Amino acid sequence: MANNKLNRMTSRDDDFSKWYTDVVTQANLIEYGPVKGTMIFKPYGFGIWELIMQNLDKEFKKLDVENVYLPLLIPASLFQKEKDHIEGFAPEVLTVTKVGDKQLDEDLYIRPTSEVLFSQYFKNNIQSYRDLPIKNNQWVNVMRWEKNTRPFLRTSEFLWQEGHTMHSTPQEAQEFARTMLDVYTKFANEYLLLPVVPGIKTEKERFNGAKETYTIESLMYDGQALQSGTSHYLGDNFSKVYDINFQNKESGVEHPYGTSWGVTTRLIGALIMTHSDDQGLVLPSKVAPTQVQIIQIKNDDEQIVEVSKKLKQDLMDTFRVKIDDSDKSFGFKISEAEIKGIPLRIEVGPRDLQNGVVTISARDNQEKTQVKLDEVVDFVTKEITNYDERLFTRAKNNLATHTFEAKTIDEYEKGINTKPGLYLVPFCGRVECEEEVKKRTSTNSRCIPFEYDHSEEPCFNCGMKTTIKAYFGRAY
Amino acid sequence: MANNKLNRMTSRDDDFSKWYTDVVTQANLIEYGPVKGTMIFKPYGFGIWELIMQNLDKEFKKLDVENVYLPLLIPASLFQKEKDHIEGFAPEVLTVTKVGDKQLDEDLYIRPTSEVLFSQYFKNNIQSYRDLPIKNNQWVNVMRWEKNTRPFLRTSEFLWQEGHTMHSTPQEAQEFARTMLDVYTKFANEYLLLPVVPGIKTEKERFNGAKETYTIESLMYDGQALQSGTSHYLGDNFSKVYDINFQNKESGVEHPYGTSWGVTTRLIGALIMTHSDDQGLVLPSKVAPTQVQIIQIKNDDEQIVEVSKKLKQDLMDTFRVKIDDSDKSFGFKISEAEIKGIPLRIEVGPRDLQNGVVTISARDNQEKTQVKLDEVVDFVTKEITNYDERLFTRAKNNLATHTFEAKTIDEYEKGINTKPGLYLVPFCGRVECEEEVKKRTSTNSRCIPFEYDHSEEPCFNCGMKTTIKAYFGRAY
Repeated sequence: MANNKLNRMTSRDDDFSKWYTDVVTQANLIEYGPVKGTMIFKPYGFGIWELIMQNLDKEFKKLDVENVYLPLLIPASLFQKEKDHIEGFAPEVLTVTKVGDKQLDEDLYIRPTSEVLFSQYFKNNIQSYRDLPIKNNQWVNVMRWEKNTRPFLRTSEFLWQEGHTMHSTPQEAQEFARTMLDVYTKFANEYLLLPVVPGIKTEKERFNGAKETYTIESLMYDGQALQSGTSHYLGDNFSKVYDINFQNKESGVEHPYGTSWGVTTRLIGALIMTHSDDQGLVLPSKVAPTQVQIIQIKNDDEQIVEVSKKLKQDLMDTFRVKIDDSDKSFGFKISEAEIKGIPLRIEVGPRDLQNGVVTISARDNQEKTQVKLDEVVDFVTKEITNYDERLFTRAKNNLATHTFEAKTIDEYEKGINTKPGLYLVPFCGRVECEEEVKKRTSTNSRCIPFEYDHSEEPCFNCGMKTTIKAYFGRAY
Repeated sequence: MANNKLNRMTSRDDDFSKWYTDVVTQANLIEYGPVKGTMIFKPYGFGIWELIMQNLDKEFKKLDVENVYLPLLIPASLFQKEKDHIEGFAPEVLTVTKVGDKQLDEDLYIRPTSEVLFSQYFKNNIQSYRDLPIKNNQWVNVMRWEKNTRPFLRTSEFLWQEGHTMHSTPQEAQEFARTMLDVYTKFANEYLLLPVVPGIKTEKERFNGAKETYTIESLMYDGQALQSGTSHYLGDNFSKVYDINFQNKESGVEHPYGTSWGVTTRLIGALIMTHSDDQGLVLPSKVAPTQVQIIQIKNDDEQIVEVSKKLKQDLMDTFRVKIDDSDKSFGFKISEAEIKGIPLRIEVGPRDLQNGVVTISARDNQEKTQVKLDEVVDFVTKEITNYDERLFTRAKNNLATHTFEAKTIDEYEKGINTKPGLYLVPFCGRVECEEEVKKRTSTNSRCIPFEYDHSEEPCFNCGMKTTIKAYFGRAY
């Protein structure tokens, strides 16, 4: 098959990092922006994000979450009130100091996250227990200046949703933070076909300003983990600092309890590093901007043009379908559809049409099936489900074969350096201990899973008796 | 009717400006952000914007426009290349100079608009005539530091869409800019029920960097105009400056021709100042987050609760419908629905239910109709159309009764100061002449309409012979 483009793509087993860059650029997802670490989402890349937004937003709305928009800029003085929070973000916050040539009276921070502004907003909108719970979300851009950037995974500006809620009791807030993690887990599984390990962050890895951080961790093809969504139980940290109060049913005054939760455009990075291969992008059907590409073997044959249009018509109620009727060569069109990770291809050619069939193939296994014209809709409907199942199964296998246990730091160190993956270890949970592990292995804990065997064992690093187990591993 | 809230609303005939602020805050659309001139879109206010986005985006996609996302920050050096463009925006551009405590090597501007970045993007993505036209759009936040701000109308940060296209010929680009103005006109009429005057901006009022600016101007209840959407034909201005080239069919190299076009959250301001009244907001049904509010006269009566649920069930496939089952007083619920401008109210009460009816009233005329339970869906379907028609008719009447002609600057000056509105005047089109008019009357031209009588007449201000006529007036 003539395939000039593919020849330029690095193999993922040879150089995973270079392969990743090849995929994101050759699949036309992004290009680099003029400011360091920024990224232009091209139509195909933004299309994936649009589908993530649309579908995840529906799940939020089912939980009575309402969308809002809070300002981009936060006055420095306001931000500095919550000490842990500012400490965590200060080194990477972009600061506006001027308008035109004029110095501003006060520095303004570009939001790295919006707990601070939401706190102000909640303060103004919560008086009584009747105002609670209050559940808001926004789909916005945020900025965190990063030293080492990679498309989608770590960029100075990224797109995300940040949800913020307030509740009258700690139980309700904590429960809501957990519920949102379940929403993320379900979404990762069903839409992105990402198997994830849900759990709790250790104290060291906790969000600055949170009492507890829940996370879903996914595992990339190369055995490295990727934090794919977090949900924080904030307790009354922000309520106290920003003076948010409500009158309870007994007319007493209390601080409400908060949560915040978010997923970002790095989910697209997770998709790529989980499903894609040496031929380019492989997209789960639910977030594929084009699910079915109809490729005409000739674009000047009347019957081919007609059948293509008819097929598109038949499929478009249920699927996102496109005809490639360009005058590029057939081989080039196939390559393009492959590189872009379009789940199903329908080839419409003269020989097949003589037999009343078209040839359908799936992006992942490339098996070709000849399908009668009047059976195309049925076939596509079934095959797209099978395709998604195959992707999810492969990803689950990858997670399973990269999940290990270790009992000592030596065992862990040797393991992580030879067989990358997630290592379940007995862990004391102390910040200092984790810092030692990090110093020695350059790896972090990923999470304390929700379910594990709680038998008492010595911490894998310091030997202190513990009933906690945590996953450690290298991460993006 | 018990109505504490309404008493606090200023009458629009007494103090239009204060009335406007009362409506936006009491209808719970926004509150002010901590940074001067910024605004928090509360759920109800953002809900209107979501409906505008969803519906307008569909119209863009019909024209094969694809969404993208370009970075927030623009390097100062890059911005400064197009001289007119930077001159127009420089005084109001917010500038990032630091990250944490560290000075950046180069100042970064927060986008006031993105022609500059799109130019870079187009440069990288246009090689041949085959790549044209290229049609992109983004829904984003932008910032322009404003001295005098008003919610929605003029804010330091606002939300908008900015479309950017490139074409191989000036004709095609110009035509596309006009097509987009037609899309805006249609959308303003059909979704926002805003009658608009479409036309061309004078040289003085043209967008910095454009060859031609098309605009739709709407007219508020108080007779002041509001620029409600613009579409610019950029010619090859940006192509030349940013070195965008393509190979034409004859293998020659040419600069492509551009357009850009946008509408902003000020459309919500236009809505308010066109339709709302002394009882609060009045929303066109197509952009009303809640179209039908079911109000229970008692919320502890089993039959009322059941009928309310059933009605909601029946209506929710076609309409955005909510039940107010709170324990607030009936009068308070009515007031709230009024203030929020919900198009139709269904009151479910015990006496009506004995007769198998509910009482339906529309926000604008408050006429009450008793409707049989099994006829509610039909009635609502018809009445919501009638409601929209009444709103549009009223707005058109307001435009008609505020549209005048003037032949001399004296006549215009006297008119604009006693009968505010749009004045069609013979105008030479010169920047200096328009500046004189502005100095004298503090008003601007709004547009040169697409259709008018082209007979030669003396310019209303300088007396120079002209066949051009333009609308002048006071504007937000």
